[in-house]
Amino acid sequence: MKQKKIKGVLAPVITPFRQDLSPDGGRFAAHCKWLLAQGASGLAIFGTTSEANSLSVDERIVLFDELLAAGVPAERLMPGTGCCALTDSVRLGRHVVAKGCAGVLMLPPFYYKGVPEAGVFRSFAETIERVGDARLRIYLYHIPQVSQVPIPIALIERLRSAYPTAIAGIKDSSGDPANLRALLDAFAGTDFDVFPGSELLLLEGLRHGGAGCITATGNVNPGPIAKLYDNWRSADADAMQAGLDALRRAIQAFPMIPAVKATVAHCTGDDAWSRVRPPLVELDAGEKAQLAAALHKLGFEMPGIASLG
Amino acid sequence: MKQKKIKGVLAPVITPFRQDLSPDGGRFAAHCKWLLAQGASGLAIFGTTSEANSLSVDERIVLFDELLAAGVPAERLMPGTGCCALTDSVRLGRHVVAKGCAGVLMLPPFYYKGVPEAGVFRSFAETIERVGDARLRIYLYHIPQVSQVPIPIALIERLRSAYPTAIAGIKDSSGDPANLRALLDAFAGTDFDVFPGSELLLLEGLRHGGAGCITATGNVNPGPIAKLYDNWRSADADAMQAGLDALRRAIQAFPMIPAVKATVAHCTGDDAWSRVRPPLVELDAGEKAQLAAALHKLGFEMPGIASLG
Repeated sequence: MKQKKIKGVLAPVITPFRQDLSPDGGRFAAHCKWLLAQGASGLAIFGTTSEANSLSVDERIVLFDELLAAGVPAERLMPGTGCCALTDSVRLGRHVVAKGCAGVLMLPPFYYKGVPEAGVFRSFAETIERVGDARLRIYLYHIPQVSQVPIPIALIERLRSAYPTAIAGIKDSSGDPANLRALLDAFAGTDFDVFPGSELLLLEGLRHGGAGCITATGNVNPGPIAKLYDNWRSADADAMQAGLDALRRAIQAFPMIPAVKATVAHCTGDDAWSRVRPPLVELDAGEKAQLAAALHKLGFEMPGIASLG
Repeated sequence: MKQKKIKGVLAPVITPFRQDLSPDGGRFAAHCKWLLAQGASGLAIFGTTSEANSLSVDERIVLFDELLAAGVPAERLMPGTGCCALTDSVRLGRHVVAKGCAGVLMLPPFYYKGVPEAGVFRSFAETIERVGDARLRIYLYHIPQVSQVPIPIALIERLRSAYPTAIAGIKDSSGDPANLRALLDAFAGTDFDVFPGSELLLLEGLRHGGAGCITATGNVNPGPIAKLYDNWRSADADAMQAGLDALRRAIQAFPMIPAVKATVAHCTGDDAWSRVRPPLVELDAGEKAQLAAALHKLGFEMPGIASLG
């Protein structure tokens, strides 16, 4: 059952909501298809940017099944499946692996803080044993500023020793270039794939063996990010990186998830995209206008998005 | 449907697990009955000490129903129902309120950090609207060292203005006497009940209008804690408080949740009680021996517990 591992640019896909805050499977599938058409390698649905932890496990399973039914190929998906409860992580993991996903992106359990490394190890180990599917490929999700539970290199090494095939890579969302470099050095020459969690570190990562990136702004800018991934050895790679950085900075001047959603709303003319579930808060009218002005100044657009709105 | 509000000593009931880590409804009900027989006013099942966030919502609903079926009265229960996903909090909340619980203890959504107060407000407001049951009594759960999402007084006041009946009280697990005192002062003379999250602050709280306490060590020491609650104006109240403190300190010299479970295992002679779900880690043999020695030195026992093991 060996399949080629996913590399390149992945978007942690935003989750659209209807007025009653229920997940909108139709808009979700349309956006996923647009991302793939623009050059995204894959879709990291159910990540932080997706507000996945603000969805019940049942809601995630329904959305996932709707996406497959809409024709999005499972082998392009890397759903987030790491929950606080072992039984939830196992249930979600089993469901998506059975349908042929490229991999799963797993948070450690994130309610308790300061837990022993042995407890985090056991969380992943029990999940792997209980999913019990040789096709499982786990990408560890290191986002300490949110989860507050880091994934240190020693833990990865211990997990790789025990489960060399299942532990496939990591998303490093720390934003810390030193941590990214330490990961790339530690796993150089292995099949453990390291994805920075932002395109700000895409070129830096690729120059030291990185596998691509999994990035929130990949929701709106997948084409140019994929272009840098495909041409990172070219003479104008640094100029391309600078262009990506400028857009990223314009968006992250606002709270990231509402700002990514507001960008899609702006480019589609469909304000439904702005909705977030609490505890997040939608950008207000003034912030939306400032963001739109910043996007206009950069000449930013999402090619062909209006037809998919 | 007005019922008297619950006050006094509540235990955030530990959740026993079978060898396969499934929740053990039989041991759970036996322990709950022991706690009530010893003088606990109520049972804050599904709290932090209960490892509730390590259980799926379905597992919590099954355990809850088993507890009622075993004869534990709903009006003595204050289940934790605050989840990261609005839909989960609503589902759990609706279920337990419909069965007549005294109240629910609600964490704010705890995945995202640094969220605007308006987002936390909306989380509680949407939950109240969607549960849509006039019997709902919410006790806010302030445990910033774990949830990382605090419940400041301004937010409580805003919630009380909008939902004066539903917002019934708070559990302050910050452990900060200044925060406890600020809460007691802010809501003095109102029907908003303030419970410190530890018996270390029981007497201090009662002297300033506190409603009792909701405390992890209430799982093993409910009788003496309830005795202080019932006799806090007596001459030997400070001596009783000192006795409670000595036991608490012996237990919290170890990681609290595994240590409370190990104490029950030690007193019942039933080591199954020691089990925790990952990411928590059971005390090792050496720690268990040290804890047992410390309990022995204090002459501690759980009266009549063996027969309920």
